[in-house]
Amino acid sequence: MAQTPSIPKGTRDFSQQETAERNYIFDTLADVFRSFGYARIETPAMENLSTLLGKYGEEGDRLLFRVLNSGDPFTGTDFESFRGEDGTYNAPLLSKQLCDKGLRYDLTVPFARYVVQHRNDLTFPFKRFQIQPVWRADRPQKGRYREFCQCDVDVIGSRSLLNELELVQIVNRAFGLLDIRVLLKINNRKVLTGFAEICGFPDKVTDITVAIDKLDKIGLDAVNAELLAKGLPESAVKVIDEILALKGDTAAKIASMRSLMNGGSASGVVSETGLKGLDELEELFGLISAAGISIPVEMDLSLARGLNYYTGAIFEVKALDWEIGSICGGGRYDNLTGIFGLPDVSGVGISFGADRIYDVMKGLGKFPAGLHTSAKVLFANMDEAATGYVLGLADALRNKGISAEVWPDAGKLKKQFDYAERKGIPFLSINGSDEAASGTLNLKNLATGEQHSFSKEDLDGVCAFIEA
Amino acid sequence: MAQTPSIPKGTRDFSQQETAERNYIFDTLADVFRSFGYARIETPAMENLSTLLGKYGEEGDRLLFRVLNSGDPFTGTDFESFRGEDGTYNAPLLSKQLCDKGLRYDLTVPFARYVVQHRNDLTFPFKRFQIQPVWRADRPQKGRYREFCQCDVDVIGSRSLLNELELVQIVNRAFGLLDIRVLLKINNRKVLTGFAEICGFPDKVTDITVAIDKLDKIGLDAVNAELLAKGLPESAVKVIDEILALKGDTAAKIASMRSLMNGGSASGVVSETGLKGLDELEELFGLISAAGISIPVEMDLSLARGLNYYTGAIFEVKALDWEIGSICGGGRYDNLTGIFGLPDVSGVGISFGADRIYDVMKGLGKFPAGLHTSAKVLFANMDEAATGYVLGLADALRNKGISAEVWPDAGKLKKQFDYAERKGIPFLSINGSDEAASGTLNLKNLATGEQHSFSKEDLDGVCAFIEA
Repeated sequence: MAQTPSIPKGTRDFSQQETAERNYIFDTLADVFRSFGYARIETPAMENLSTLLGKYGEEGDRLLFRVLNSGDPFTGTDFESFRGEDGTYNAPLLSKQLCDKGLRYDLTVPFARYVVQHRNDLTFPFKRFQIQPVWRADRPQKGRYREFCQCDVDVIGSRSLLNELELVQIVNRAFGLLDIRVLLKINNRKVLTGFAEICGFPDKVTDITVAIDKLDKIGLDAVNAELLAKGLPESAVKVIDEILALKGDTAAKIASMRSLMNGGSASGVVSETGLKGLDELEELFGLISAAGISIPVEMDLSLARGLNYYTGAIFEVKALDWEIGSICGGGRYDNLTGIFGLPDVSGVGISFGADRIYDVMKGLGKFPAGLHTSAKVLFANMDEAATGYVLGLADALRNKGISAEVWPDAGKLKKQFDYAERKGIPFLSINGSDEAASGTLNLKNLATGEQHSFSKEDLDGVCAFIEA
Repeated sequence: MAQTPSIPKGTRDFSQQETAERNYIFDTLADVFRSFGYARIETPAMENLSTLLGKYGEEGDRLLFRVLNSGDPFTGTDFESFRGEDGTYNAPLLSKQLCDKGLRYDLTVPFARYVVQHRNDLTFPFKRFQIQPVWRADRPQKGRYREFCQCDVDVIGSRSLLNELELVQIVNRAFGLLDIRVLLKINNRKVLTGFAEICGFPDKVTDITVAIDKLDKIGLDAVNAELLAKGLPESAVKVIDEILALKGDTAAKIASMRSLMNGGSASGVVSETGLKGLDELEELFGLISAAGISIPVEMDLSLARGLNYYTGAIFEVKALDWEIGSICGGGRYDNLTGIFGLPDVSGVGISFGADRIYDVMKGLGKFPAGLHTSAKVLFANMDEAATGYVLGLADALRNKGISAEVWPDAGKLKKQFDYAERKGIPFLSINGSDEAASGTLNLKNLATGEQHSFSKEDLDGVCAFIEA
């Protein structure tokens, strides 16, 4: 019996239309990246699991797609030794035994691995972009896929905040070209560290950030209750309330925070790290306002993006006219290549989520018309004796840069006409033995009905008629 | 301790230069495919193993990369039941138990699956191309990788030989643009079937083809010995010798074969299939000579390409100036979608091996210069007070389509100069507070040493200087 064909859940086929639209996003981003001097690299879909494991937290390890070792990975494995007293297997350990490779989970860790592995061949600061699919065994849902495409742009080997500015310029230019209204939110990991330090709980950065993040949704009392539940004392909560009470524009907020970080909070603690983070924020916002960035840019003290490897600026971009979560994000990382043996190389990067950007553009109708184009001309095939003549006409048009199809089976016009219509081929050319004898090329604009006969030598005339 | 980073054997990183060169191949092929009315689709990297298994023979099944099921795929598996008396496990069965998905092995089976799954949304004849990586757990060696890229172009839903001709035209145009001299070899599966039929051994097609293929290398006596060893009787070998003795050009050979297939061989057997195949070959070669194909095209009776699903024309392309095996191949398949429940849809397609084409072009020095371009201009950074001014100049150039970098750290010129040189950035622009005050943009051509000062309003002058 024939199989019913399907694809794994969370993966997608892309039709001709969808592929053209996705490539429009990729090409636009690539052009923007290149205009700032970034160049493209590619890394393999499979990485050694030793490269991937432990880089994305326990949850990330669980979501890695593992590739079974080739041949017979089983013989020699003592399966019982991986079995617990309850009869279940230790899946992480046993899969490590059976699988050396996994599918890449993002483009950042492969990039770090690439930089370390090829460091002697690279010119620093190294500016690269990378547009490739990644895979995560997440539960598929609306807007979340198991195979999706990331578009990463990073510069590594420079601590200058001009690099942060450049990423802001890239975001500004890219979403301008894609015609999506966005808000760029910026935070700084050192400021978050500073909050925790002046609370007296430097190890509670995540709890504090999560609580700050919820203020708008749940209100101050609930935030305070949550912080107490996380084990913070009243005194620490009081400091956080001072932060939450900050008012004013970015400059005013930074000034107030500077005072809090400088010993002016209820705890009296001074946070050098926090002050450094405020310096960075202030400098970056100064650069942004001098650089004529047209998208709104806002400081967001709750922005953390997982915190895993960021050490300075943190970025996130939201679409203003479409509800979908963040469509772009990134930040500064000082230690990323350290895990691969190359310490003290600071970098900053940002990742565009092409699939969500696609959903936003589709939802808002932002794709230009005509991205997916069929051939410009269908040459009909009604007269077998003229086939050779028609083939020559089609190839002559291709030489002029005009795409052309020849209907493969000599036969009725109706079917050929329908084909052109269904595929949106704008011109039909019907030529038989008479035209072959006289060297004529007939052309009909199917939208307007306009017809014209050309000498087959008059290709410029043909092109002008088609491109009019 | 830091890990030493590496990638799985048989996979590759692609540098900025390599990525640019690879994309040159992909873009050239895509443009050619589009000029004939083919449009691009994409399918997921992972397919269900049920889609892939059994489509590539036993060897192919063994070479599939299998993806371990997520979560805990082990608990509930009775490992002992997969174990033979010799203590080894039945790897194919056990991996089927643990893995539902595999990485795609080629683009043809996913295409067949796609056509069946989406048949109600497609316009037939359906002309698509697809440029994506595939994965095979082959032993890596020179020119053979575990991740490599295929560029497939197929038309499905038409039996006309004009489709075969179109693929020949595509090969002709593509290798012309890539500037690789090639030989296109053509055979027909029905003719191979005919050989076996007139020998009286229709099931020995593969043995007979393999033997014919070796004639040039091992000579007639050794071929005959091999055929006898494969179990063919003297009488059958005699028929094959008649085929091998065929002389003359394509037309003469076809005429001689027609006589053999029509009962004129030692066996006296008539092969209707063989005669049909000769008709197809004759028609196709007629079309090819009428169409003005400039590459050499040759009939090769030994060409079989695995025989797995071909039913008519078989194609193979060899580079004439570089030893590497075939760089492109394909054929007609009448039954491919049948395995997924859609019988009687004939198609024909051809696959360009991008990685081998890359090796040929690299070996012959065929890549145009300047494919990988760094930014056109490096704006030096020596005077922090002028940073904002310089940032504005760079962005103004980008608006004119000229890529530009700004050196991130104010400092010595030497380092910035070296960076431009190492990256091959052709122009350096050095501007400080004086230039900011006077609204000047200095530009130096690093190759010629030519310098010029422009008003910052004179962007057209700047562009002309750069593009000169």
